[in-house]
Amino acid sequence: MVENALATKKTGGLAGVIAGQTAISTVGKEGIGLTYRGYDIGALATSASFEEIAWLLIYGELPDETELNHYRQRLMQLRTLPAGLKQALEAIPATAHPMDVLRTGCSMLGTLEPESDTHTQTDIADRLLATLPGMLVYWYQFQYNGTRIDTTSDEETTAGYFLHLLKDKKPEASLRRALDVSLVLYAEHEFNASTFAARITASTLSDFYSCIVSGIGTLRGALHGGANEAAMELITQFKTAPEAEAGIRKMLLEKQKIMGFGHRVYKISDPRSDIIKLWSEKLAETAKEGYLYEVSAAIEKVMWEEKHLFPNVDFYSATTYHFCGIPKFFFTPLFVMARVAGWSAHIIEQRKDNRLIRPDAVYTGPMPRPFVLLAQRG
Amino acid sequence: MVENALATKKTGGLAGVIAGQTAISTVGKEGIGLTYRGYDIGALATSASFEEIAWLLIYGELPDETELNHYRQRLMQLRTLPAGLKQALEAIPATAHPMDVLRTGCSMLGTLEPESDTHTQTDIADRLLATLPGMLVYWYQFQYNGTRIDTTSDEETTAGYFLHLLKDKKPEASLRRALDVSLVLYAEHEFNASTFAARITASTLSDFYSCIVSGIGTLRGALHGGANEAAMELITQFKTAPEAEAGIRKMLLEKQKIMGFGHRVYKISDPRSDIIKLWSEKLAETAKEGYLYEVSAAIEKVMWEEKHLFPNVDFYSATTYHFCGIPKFFFTPLFVMARVAGWSAHIIEQRKDNRLIRPDAVYTGPMPRPFVLLAQRG
Repeated sequence: MVENALATKKTGGLAGVIAGQTAISTVGKEGIGLTYRGYDIGALATSASFEEIAWLLIYGELPDETELNHYRQRLMQLRTLPAGLKQALEAIPATAHPMDVLRTGCSMLGTLEPESDTHTQTDIADRLLATLPGMLVYWYQFQYNGTRIDTTSDEETTAGYFLHLLKDKKPEASLRRALDVSLVLYAEHEFNASTFAARITASTLSDFYSCIVSGIGTLRGALHGGANEAAMELITQFKTAPEAEAGIRKMLLEKQKIMGFGHRVYKISDPRSDIIKLWSEKLAETAKEGYLYEVSAAIEKVMWEEKHLFPNVDFYSATTYHFCGIPKFFFTPLFVMARVAGWSAHIIEQRKDNRLIRPDAVYTGPMPRPFVLLAQRG
Repeated sequence: MVENALATKKTGGLAGVIAGQTAISTVGKEGIGLTYRGYDIGALATSASFEEIAWLLIYGELPDETELNHYRQRLMQLRTLPAGLKQALEAIPATAHPMDVLRTGCSMLGTLEPESDTHTQTDIADRLLATLPGMLVYWYQFQYNGTRIDTTSDEETTAGYFLHLLKDKKPEASLRRALDVSLVLYAEHEFNASTFAARITASTLSDFYSCIVSGIGTLRGALHGGANEAAMELITQFKTAPEAEAGIRKMLLEKQKIMGFGHRVYKISDPRSDIIKLWSEKLAETAKEGYLYEVSAAIEKVMWEEKHLFPNVDFYSATTYHFCGIPKFFFTPLFVMARVAGWSAHIIEQRKDNRLIRPDAVYTGPMPRPFVLLAQRG
């Protein structure tokens, strides 16, 4: 504890400071691993779907087949958006950031279907898991194409549902599964900034929607969820691997920040990166701009050679999403659709053994000084 | 630092843990005081208006007369709500919690007037200071009375503006000043939960609105801003001082929680309470239900005798607002209209010397366990 306290003093940002307990996940034990409820992320990403993971995170155990089927059916039935929410979404202009659409949509839903004894925290978690894809695509199709889409679908998975709404046709199996895996990888990550913000909101005994809204607003930043979009912007600057290699070396010489590399907690590697990298490579084989995978791999190589930095989950998620035909400005919203599972689990956990989260600050401002009346200033 | 760390381990909630630096305010030095930018809260509440305080917090120094006049004029000119915001507010039902109205209204405004190089953080702080009262009362008058109000007013102060909109007539000077003082008292409070949540959101480099939205959602909880409404519910249970005294003793025997007393940081007294208590007493002289002041004083007396607990700012704010003719469910929104000044100052400060706020957690969940395929579960 002493070292932690000293580390904070030196570095700030609560780095290395214990802010509470969690039974939901472990991040970066020995610098590398990630487990959800004790299960290694590698096994989960290979064999489980996002809905299994959401259930695992929120209810604590993997669902059996009956539970999973019921859960999927329930989420499918919850996809219809209420009229008031659609009215608000239609008032959001085409120029808006899609993260602001989700932040506003979630906040609006909280006014229409508030938390209560009969609309409980798990009801709201289900409803948000079910409606976030529809909120985003409803707004998008309304503002970009002038159509009011039907947000129901017979796609059973969140990944398939999102792709179905976005493209207005049934997705290919490989794209559906690639997106499903990425949602598994993005679903939960211990006391990251957005989850910690959600827990602080929960700690005042605020309602469930307020906690999620804090999570969305916090995830929006470039140092958090926004990193996958920033990585895409970087990658698409280059057309070939050699061009990327030269370009990145030049950027490093110019001390430019390269997005999608390194991590606050992981020190050796991000276990999610190798998994999503394989999907990026696989989809690249048939994707229109498949060469972007080679560009990405070249960037990774230079970053390792020059800086000993490894790619984090955001880096190869970017090309994976691109190969799925998803516009760049939906990358961070997809992170929300996954992380809402982790946030929900953390809000529920915070409430079980709550204490107001309220740290102290070191004061660096003016010493006590006498007040001067308005007429005597200037 | 060692004691702080040990205290955390024992108590949680980051109590006593230093989470960063601030030059904006000091809270509870020697268990009692509160200063904004070095000025004692007593002097500020006696002689300054809320707009002076907002300027002081956001820009670092007290404004001179010219600056204050320009600032007031600017805020007055920013009171018109954009059409898209009104459309969203009209979609929020009458049953909604007014804090959810502000959370949604602020989030919506962020989609209409996003932060940019030409719409900067201080522009947005101004705009929110100017529009939050109008958002709330526009929604209220639309849903409760079916009218679309004009949100402009020639009232120069935020306090007067709010009362003018709410009652559709010019407020009495004593009510305007009482509300003004309460906004001064609520404007800023160091690393309280809502401000810390706003700083975490800022620390990912998210936009200004997202930070404020986190603040609103976090303030909403009963352990934070919601306390003034809870205090009012307590006080109005009693008709006389003796009835209150007996009632509170009974509640204490039954181990019921009494809202509006004690504080995480202040250990001896809340310096804001004595100030707002004087206003409650003064307004009680002519208020319709002035006896509620005597009821409050009786509750304070019992709480001190029985528990050695002092009233915090929320306790006498409740009757002060009630004597101003403000409905109870607007008490916490008024807290928002004041604290938006402090949040804005903290977001600007966090951005100046930013580091991602990301603590660690102690893991208490299942040990690593082998994954079981879906078909083999149950």
